[in-house]
Amino acid sequence: MDQVRVIEVKQSVFADNDRRADQLRQELKERGIFLLNLMSSPGAGKTTTLRRTVELLRDEMKIGVMEADIDSDVDARAMAAAGVKAIQLHTGGMCHLDADMTRQGLDQLIEGDVELAILENVGNLVCPAEFDTGAVKNAAILSVPEGDDKPLKYPLMFQVCDVVLINKTDVAPYFDFDMEKCREYIKMRNPKAKVIPICAKTGEGVGEWADWLREQVRSWRA
Amino acid sequence: MDQVRVIEVKQSVFADNDRRADQLRQELKERGIFLLNLMSSPGAGKTTTLRRTVELLRDEMKIGVMEADIDSDVDARAMAAAGVKAIQLHTGGMCHLDADMTRQGLDQLIEGDVELAILENVGNLVCPAEFDTGAVKNAAILSVPEGDDKPLKYPLMFQVCDVVLINKTDVAPYFDFDMEKCREYIKMRNPKAKVIPICAKTGEGVGEWADWLREQVRSWRA
Repeated sequence: MDQVRVIEVKQSVFADNDRRADQLRQELKERGIFLLNLMSSPGAGKTTTLRRTVELLRDEMKIGVMEADIDSDVDARAMAAAGVKAIQLHTGGMCHLDADMTRQGLDQLIEGDVELAILENVGNLVCPAEFDTGAVKNAAILSVPEGDDKPLKYPLMFQVCDVVLINKTDVAPYFDFDMEKCREYIKMRNPKAKVIPICAKTGEGVGEWADWLREQVRSWRA
Repeated sequence: MDQVRVIEVKQSVFADNDRRADQLRQELKERGIFLLNLMSSPGAGKTTTLRRTVELLRDEMKIGVMEADIDSDVDARAMAAAGVKAIQLHTGGMCHLDADMTRQGLDQLIEGDVELAILENVGNLVCPAEFDTGAVKNAAILSVPEGDDKPLKYPLMFQVCDVVLINKTDVAPYFDFDMEKCREYIKMRNPKAKVIPICAKTGEGVGEWADWLREQVRSWRA
């Protein structure tokens, strides 16, 4: 059997997105708006987690949600039904949001008086991590069925995240998912990332996540 | 509560990839090589499915596998251990493979005498669908924990696929996954797509998938 061969195939991307993202963040600071960028694979539970989060925080602060999707507006409808201002961003096939795309959504969202703006990014564990959206903090959801090895295979996502929510802990008995190993892999990629196991379906662990988020919003707006 | 607002944010991409993909397909035809492009979200079970597939087909035809990943070579090692020629393609952060990137891998892979070449694309339900790799057929895996609504939210992936494998059927009792609804959504996107429920972990349904693949290889090489 041959040895495994590794071939580096590469293309160049990006423009001056970083500068635009910094500029957006600066404006958000001046206006007292906290922007959270929430990322994950398709089906990891972003929308369900957001619904739970909003339930816990909506009486304390004004929340607005931007739902980025290639097509459909089911997520924005779900969030509107949960009682927060929600807009749907259609990316027209694009796999991520950059700072300018985020700004287009924010301009619509913050016509009202929003303190916490949340961007639910396109379901994709790769590309969204490559583009700074201008968010103050980045969060990723990794769900148990995806496997504990994902921080090894999708390094950038875990490098750019301030917090990783490990979702669907209720089905852990049916999958070979080693929580300690997963924590270790995340730590390899990013020693500073906070890791919070949750079950968005039952609400378990969501309180700890809401506490973390509340603290971040407060210190940003202080 | 405000009405849901939909904003179209769009960017342009792509070059002359389609022409290069057609050219690659033509060359593959002349050389009698069938190329399968296998796509899915992270953690949907591409590598496990491939291991099962190779077990069923390796005595009948020469198989080579290209494992595309952003980092790590765990998948190529797993395939080599399964007894087929395997190479790892590192995309250097890129979220997909285009025809030229695929060709770079193929050139290495078919130094030997390969009849069935399989590209395990980057784990991503969005971008890989946008780039024709030059493959003869496209396959997608959707796993039960991701949810039955994914064909609604990731339309292009299901439009470009000739076959959809619905994996992890063993955990269906623990998720709200409606198989009939999922089939219906796939049909909305692509009436011609074949849908095969499988469980790569136990091997259930993999025989039907191998039969389909065998038939495709035969008719391409006839």
